[in-house]
Amino acid sequence: MPERPYFSARTADLNIETGKVFAPKFDTQGLIPVIASDARSGEVVMFAYMNAEALARTIETGEAYYWSRSRAELWHKGATSGNVQRVVEIRTDCDQDAIWMKVEMGGARAACHVGYRSCFFRSLPVGELPERALELTFREDKKLFDPESVY
Amino acid sequence: MPERPYFSARTADLNIETGKVFAPKFDTQGLIPVIASDARSGEVVMFAYMNAEALARTIETGEAYYWSRSRAELWHKGATSGNVQRVVEIRTDCDQDAIWMKVEMGGARAACHVGYRSCFFRSLPVGELPERALELTFREDKKLFDPESVY
Repeated sequence: MPERPYFSARTADLNIETGKVFAPKFDTQGLIPVIASDARSGEVVMFAYMNAEALARTIETGEAYYWSRSRAELWHKGATSGNVQRVVEIRTDCDQDAIWMKVEMGGARAACHVGYRSCFFRSLPVGELPERALELTFREDKKLFDPESVY
Repeated sequence: MPERPYFSARTADLNIETGKVFAPKFDTQGLIPVIASDARSGEVVMFAYMNAEALARTIETGEAYYWSRSRAELWHKGATSGNVQRVVEIRTDCDQDAIWMKVEMGGARAACHVGYRSCFFRSLPVGELPERALELTFREDKKLFDPESVY
């Protein structure tokens, strides 16, 4: 990977939690968790991981790159499906070990490889002691693309 | 931990990605990543982890429980600060290895231990090749509580 001098090292003298220095923390696999939400609706559409290369490319290009753990490769979101994510804003959290991005979705405006807008298309009951196996409820009524014809 | 028969096992014959069975996947540490967003504004306010016990208690009580990795203990969010999170909705994603919750925040209506509404209170530049160390921009102008007096 080319050098990315714009990520600061996590030295002890930096004020990670309240300062202005960007010093992202990658885990022991070199990954940082990333939340993507739809810039229009605010809905969370996806959760994935980036390595330093993916984070750098996202910052440089303004399009979302992730690290695919299943394929073990850099993943330009939408390269296959057309559902590219244009990054409107990137934030980091207090201890700088997570990333939140607001994205505008291209193509079918879907984030999920199953075909739905959001990967989080099912909810579960909350607030009472369940007496049997929990059943999920679908929160989206239609797929925005047919994964069979895309992948 | 008491038995939680309402979490289904991740057997191969279940249709994890498109079915109605809830079979959450915990990682090798027994944790699942959790995104919390403000039910009113849609803003992502926090990212943390749950173990099975924390997820079960959250479902049963309708208040957010997490697993504190730094303290290695079950963590009832807001027990110390008063900033309890009432869970309005819980969702899971396609492969059921992440959780997204919409929460109503009690107390000071802040999620971050630093005192801000959201842990994601700083943004970074996006869309051009940075020439020097990235500088974060504050997106919240005031703390909602004084962490010194609370913790």
